[in-house]
Amino acid sequence: MMTAQVRTIEFRDGQLWIVDQTLLPSTYHQICIDSVETLWEAIRSLRVRGAPAIGVAAAFGAWLSVRQAEGEDGHDLWPYLLAAHDQLRTSRPTAVNLFWALERVEKRLQSSRELSATDFRARALDLALEMLREDERVCEQIGEIGATLLRDGMTILTHCNAGALATVRFGTALAPIYVASARGLRFNVIADETRPLLQGSRLTAWELTRAGIPTTIICDGAAAAVMRTRRVDLVIVGADRVAANGDVANKIGTYGLALAARAHGIPMYVAAPVSTIDMATGHGNDIVIEERSPDEIRVPFGLHVGAPEAEVYNPAFDVTPASLITALITEHGLVQPLNEQTLRQHVLEPSSV
Amino acid sequence: MMTAQVRTIEFRDGQLWIVDQTLLPSTYHQICIDSVETLWEAIRSLRVRGAPAIGVAAAFGAWLSVRQAEGEDGHDLWPYLLAAHDQLRTSRPTAVNLFWALERVEKRLQSSRELSATDFRARALDLALEMLREDERVCEQIGEIGATLLRDGMTILTHCNAGALATVRFGTALAPIYVASARGLRFNVIADETRPLLQGSRLTAWELTRAGIPTTIICDGAAAAVMRTRRVDLVIVGADRVAANGDVANKIGTYGLALAARAHGIPMYVAAPVSTIDMATGHGNDIVIEERSPDEIRVPFGLHVGAPEAEVYNPAFDVTPASLITALITEHGLVQPLNEQTLRQHVLEPSSV
Repeated sequence: MMTAQVRTIEFRDGQLWIVDQTLLPSTYHQICIDSVETLWEAIRSLRVRGAPAIGVAAAFGAWLSVRQAEGEDGHDLWPYLLAAHDQLRTSRPTAVNLFWALERVEKRLQSSRELSATDFRARALDLALEMLREDERVCEQIGEIGATLLRDGMTILTHCNAGALATVRFGTALAPIYVASARGLRFNVIADETRPLLQGSRLTAWELTRAGIPTTIICDGAAAAVMRTRRVDLVIVGADRVAANGDVANKIGTYGLALAARAHGIPMYVAAPVSTIDMATGHGNDIVIEERSPDEIRVPFGLHVGAPEAEVYNPAFDVTPASLITALITEHGLVQPLNEQTLRQHVLEPSSV
Repeated sequence: MMTAQVRTIEFRDGQLWIVDQTLLPSTYHQICIDSVETLWEAIRSLRVRGAPAIGVAAAFGAWLSVRQAEGEDGHDLWPYLLAAHDQLRTSRPTAVNLFWALERVEKRLQSSRELSATDFRARALDLALEMLREDERVCEQIGEIGATLLRDGMTILTHCNAGALATVRFGTALAPIYVASARGLRFNVIADETRPLLQGSRLTAWELTRAGIPTTIICDGAAAAVMRTRRVDLVIVGADRVAANGDVANKIGTYGLALAARAHGIPMYVAAPVSTIDMATGHGNDIVIEERSPDEIRVPFGLHVGAPEAEVYNPAFDVTPASLITALITEHGLVQPLNEQTLRQHVLEPSSV
């Protein structure tokens, strides 16, 4: 893989470090996450963002909560862990990986409560580190599978950031591009800037150009025109939650992009780890959509541009019906066509790749 | 009509005044346009913008060019006028109203060249003032015709600004809303913020809320999701140029909006004066699309957000095929369906309204 690729979440010298993505692309700065409060704030403020990265970061919450807590054994520490998880669940509502990670940590540590406090703390850290390494493997696997869809010279359009910065490394939507690029294939990537928080122009364009992949930033509103007047071979995006029927919640703007891709006969791929699939949510319409502050639209970057008397509606995500998605790419393979039946089969009996 | 409505272009005390729209919504400030250079800069920098307003402002170019020029008669002043027009034609390439206005002024003043210099100057000013008043009448008429499409309680989505600020008064796309509101109908307007220059959040939301019409700003990427999950009864936008086949060039993002409206069975209207119709351009693909500075996307409002190594593609307009447009609303009536034949008939033999 590319050497220039960023490590979004890193554990070194006994500390958890994340790249503060709110400062990119002008400043590359790692911050130390040394408490549950710092972690909550970092997720809430999108210092760490992207569904898989949120999941991995949250997995360190248990360790952070018990690290300095007083107690004899795991039973004594358990309430600290539960309180931390309750707090972290309030940070962002849409990415299912957050809830998945916290639940997984609870289930796995439950049986370790008999351990001494010291061993329980070590177990909590080991588990988080295991989930960190697993995310790397999963993303690399998504990259391998997705790369089979790519041909040399393709122009690929993406929205928001589902790259290395949205995971521990490699990314989801961008992983196939990194894998195929490392094998010598060349691509042009078109990155929607992705209002309101501009993850496309700030993050996707930054990490792709850093890895030597030519990238062109466009306004979100230009995507349909680009499909009509220029060449776009495929669209690939990430996901914050996939419902049981295959509907995909992803960054606001994805649904309009899917409609435009369909109108132009352009394949629309979604790349996401299996942990993003939420079989407990039957339909895309049941997914809770986070609404963020009006000021992200009215006062972008501290400048008052939006008329103050107007209302603002700022949903962070939208839902794209499964019928508009050519295939879902997970670490287990392609789900194509994407529907309730194929998705259930994929989750229950992962095909070998 | 609403008393609170802004006058975008005004002639008073012997001077031409325009609202500097780059300062809105934080500052309402009129600037005096006292030379061809100031006028060119004001159009180029979008201090005055919107196809009809650009046309009217440009109509004052002849007067500005000859006002202080030396000469005995119109013949002596004529070269100043032509040079001014040549310069103004370079200000913005897509809005046909600019070229239409300059050509009309030339045609109408050609026969006045025998006049004394003083009378020729007066004639140039009279003509510009006539075109200013005509724009008001035309927009009011578009408002009357468009209002017949509106019902009390409707939610109307619009893109960019085709309001009072895009014309002398009343607007094109917003004129029907003003007319019907003055008759007591109530609407909710959803305004796409319209990246990169945010004419929706800065201008449309400002002028509508100023006139007491409830307005909600959304990101451009949210429009399709809003159509899917909330109520949108119709979409109405302006136009910068309508080709002979009915294809419409309008602010970037309009085409994606039209695709989304079609997917949801929502009527998509375009409101524009007949002067926006360019029968000399056969097909939408023949319309010259202005590409603006990459910094509008990379460095919005002076803040470096876009990755510096990335390319930027910044087309100011896109083309929406006539087949996606429910009807064109002009001062002469509705063109529905919109195609080469109906458009030709409409331009040649305007139906009485």
